[in-house]
Amino acid sequence: MIRPLRATQENVASGFDNPYLSFYLSIVMYQPAALDLAFQALADPSRRAMVDRLALGPASVSELAKPLAMSLPGVMQHLAVLEASGLVISEKVGRTRTCRIEPKAFNQAEQWIAERRALWERRFDRLGAFLEETKDED
Amino acid sequence: MIRPLRATQENVASGFDNPYLSFYLSIVMYQPAALDLAFQALADPSRRAMVDRLALGPASVSELAKPLAMSLPGVMQHLAVLEASGLVISEKVGRTRTCRIEPKAFNQAEQWIAERRALWERRFDRLGAFLEETKDED
Repeated sequence: MIRPLRATQENVASGFDNPYLSFYLSIVMYQPAALDLAFQALADPSRRAMVDRLALGPASVSELAKPLAMSLPGVMQHLAVLEASGLVISEKVGRTRTCRIEPKAFNQAEQWIAERRALWERRFDRLGAFLEETKDED
Repeated sequence: MIRPLRATQENVASGFDNPYLSFYLSIVMYQPAALDLAFQALADPSRRAMVDRLALGPASVSELAKPLAMSLPGVMQHLAVLEASGLVISEKVGRTRTCRIEPKAFNQAEQWIAERRALWERRFDRLGAFLEETKDED
């Protein structure tokens, strides 16, 4: 009764270029929700403006709110999205909530893009080398 | 009648640390929708899986659909989001639509994160240098 395994192997054989298979499956199967939340958080200009401010150093919620044409509850809502994504952490001391960047989540998002870019740049390099070789043969 | 300008200057004077002001305003005021769309497009695991595949080279829509447990119309919908964001472009030749990565939009998103990271890393460096100096004084 090895049918499910064979079916998978057949799918795999018909579906992919083999050299990339293990790499490809590993990234398709490992899709952490953390990246969903990080990219989602960065998809809003107000939240990116808050990140811009926090990149310069920790800030209170009212400092974050100041340049945004937005109510404090609105800012709190955006802050909640940033905190849920792990990009920002905040701490309340007395009556002031201070927010700061959490670099780890940014690194993960940046690395995700950088790794894909490395793949297609390598491919373009190989294509360039191939064209160069072909030119020499002429 | 320079009231709006004066009001802006007052807001600015009360609201920001001056050294960062021009930089900060420039990024708050320049929030291109392109980044909204790019980060939004990357916030979905199926779309990231499609990018994973396309990082290895151009692919037809049915090749993109194969590893995803998804109908072809579902894939087309995700592809539309990727194309609207500029991350992916596609071209129909005969009956086959071939998709490929558009590196420019990825570079923009990666650069946005990298620039912010450079800011807080510089800040941490300054903090480290300060602590080092203070230690020497002890």
